[in-house]
Amino acid sequence: MSCDFFSNATPGVQQISPYQPGKPIDELKRELGLDDIVKLASNENPLGCSPLAVAAIQAEMTQIGRYPDGNAFALKEAIRQKFGFAHNRITPGNGSNDILELVARAFINPGEEAVYSQHAFAVYPLAVLAASGKGVEVPALNYGHDLEAMARAVNGKTKVVFIANPNNPTGTWFERAEFEAFMAKIPANVLVVLDEAYVEYVTEAGFMNGFDYVDQYPNLLVSRTFSKAYGLASLRVGYAIAHPDVTNILNRVRQPFNVNSFGLAAATASLGDDAFVAASRELNAAGMRQIEAGLNALGLAFIPSRANFIAFDAKRPAMEVFQALLKEGVIVRPIANYGMPTWVRVSIGLEGENARFLQALTKVLG
Amino acid sequence: MSCDFFSNATPGVQQISPYQPGKPIDELKRELGLDDIVKLASNENPLGCSPLAVAAIQAEMTQIGRYPDGNAFALKEAIRQKFGFAHNRITPGNGSNDILELVARAFINPGEEAVYSQHAFAVYPLAVLAASGKGVEVPALNYGHDLEAMARAVNGKTKVVFIANPNNPTGTWFERAEFEAFMAKIPANVLVVLDEAYVEYVTEAGFMNGFDYVDQYPNLLVSRTFSKAYGLASLRVGYAIAHPDVTNILNRVRQPFNVNSFGLAAATASLGDDAFVAASRELNAAGMRQIEAGLNALGLAFIPSRANFIAFDAKRPAMEVFQALLKEGVIVRPIANYGMPTWVRVSIGLEGENARFLQALTKVLG
Repeated sequence: MSCDFFSNATPGVQQISPYQPGKPIDELKRELGLDDIVKLASNENPLGCSPLAVAAIQAEMTQIGRYPDGNAFALKEAIRQKFGFAHNRITPGNGSNDILELVARAFINPGEEAVYSQHAFAVYPLAVLAASGKGVEVPALNYGHDLEAMARAVNGKTKVVFIANPNNPTGTWFERAEFEAFMAKIPANVLVVLDEAYVEYVTEAGFMNGFDYVDQYPNLLVSRTFSKAYGLASLRVGYAIAHPDVTNILNRVRQPFNVNSFGLAAATASLGDDAFVAASRELNAAGMRQIEAGLNALGLAFIPSRANFIAFDAKRPAMEVFQALLKEGVIVRPIANYGMPTWVRVSIGLEGENARFLQALTKVLG
Repeated sequence: MSCDFFSNATPGVQQISPYQPGKPIDELKRELGLDDIVKLASNENPLGCSPLAVAAIQAEMTQIGRYPDGNAFALKEAIRQKFGFAHNRITPGNGSNDILELVARAFINPGEEAVYSQHAFAVYPLAVLAASGKGVEVPALNYGHDLEAMARAVNGKTKVVFIANPNNPTGTWFERAEFEAFMAKIPANVLVVLDEAYVEYVTEAGFMNGFDYVDQYPNLLVSRTFSKAYGLASLRVGYAIAHPDVTNILNRVRQPFNVNSFGLAAATASLGDDAFVAASRELNAAGMRQIEAGLNALGLAFIPSRANFIAFDAKRPAMEVFQALLKEGVIVRPIANYGMPTWVRVSIGLEGENARFLQALTKVLG
């Protein structure tokens, strides 16, 4: 008795690339005989998280056996107080990855389309395929979103458009005027998902903020995460702000306990620590200048970035550079799989980590 | 510019009941002016969790800003060492709820069917509807699974059968012979999901264990959780053991970081504390006898249970009993929504909690 489970899967899932399990850092350390590894691969916050989050986690230690608040009441209340959105507009997510997936699952029927940009976050096409939807990738413009072309790619089958500002892995961005012109062209029944995972890192005054637009556009959903500037990547917390009707729909597919108690408590507390986010932003801006200077000194082209990472052209296969840097104890992210075969993305770390990366890169490329 | 987002959702999602946000216990306490609430509503472990889990969580506190190991290497290794399954047969889940959903999403196309029993876990029909599948509910036999009828309900459109042993919310069970006869009738291309969330609570010698069967039946998936006997409900960790081909498919739809770092660390450590699970099982068995005796004294019918809860017939609308007990500071679970309008499920707690429940129930019914 046996069966071909591959053909048994849904058509979209069959198209998803098989999962490649990676090795945890501890295993890599052992294999490479390295003591001290610098990880600049996952756009994590090198400052960790707010002390308020740490205290909130400690306070949860007596309740480990109890289920989380499936309604995320305290987190929603903190978001309401900080940003002014009623509870019925907030969807908590197991990271913002969960939000992206809930949208695809709730709105995309097999064969229906979702539009996203070339060089955009890998989860967009994955979430669409998992729903057996058709992903429509629009060629990038200078590595960033071509919003005009993306609007033109919308047709009667389009259910969702995913846009990111700033974009991962390129760090590119768009401004208010471009966004408003884009939204004016999108039909009311097409949901626009504006992924602002990195928005807290932007230092430019007047940079657009999706929250300013959700009242104006009922078909706009803004997703945010606590994994980046808030430094809670380990705990998986994100959320969406959207129209109450969209939120109602997302809640029907959301797992009742999709966010764990420690994540809820830490995220809720983190919203009260603006100083931590400001310090993270400032450290990032300084680190960005440091790495840009280093890349310039090496004569390497890079894409100007408003996020907490920067992508540069190593002018040789990215995987080779990744492997060579790994041997030097520096982990970065080759982004060959984003259609950028010679490009590498490096997250901004502490000053010493950035220096060690630049030193290792100089050695590896020289 | 506006839109009917309800009609925009997938057909299955449209059929899911709107989400009803509940109030957290702290809010209830405030509203009812109660200091001391006994919660016997969610089948949680009244002993909390293993001290090894607490220590593992503390050790994670320095890594809050870092992403979890998306491959769950350490947890898989602990499962392999304890139960003998290779890593490529293990799927980590954000609770076993996540596992149930991954199965539905990976294998059920719109219109295809999944079979489950009347009075079975509410997540089965929800996961099927979210995939726009058709749920086929088979009438229960003495509140438990009618495995013969369930096998007969399988047809050419059936992709998945969900069975639970013991079952939630009824506590009913089936034995090896019944299970083997059932599996013999299930076609090789139909995946059987055996939900063993409560199996660690069973005290009867020779009770069947799904892990004994996964080699024999390639179309059997066993799901387990750390939320019950392991006492880690807050942290959302479950897993599936299945054929490598099934595991490969599930990993294509699994979110890369579906389980948080604290959950991974706590679950991994918990697998090393058999004494804690044994103590939980013993406390539960004693508490079960205590509550059975109390229900007998009140002349209330109950369903014999092998899990960490028991369902009884209050002979009046379950919601009324729930509300009345709430005013006494005792939270239980009315299971009217499981097609049992006068039935209430109570989780087994500490001796004093069980006593307080019985006292409150006597007052409320008397």
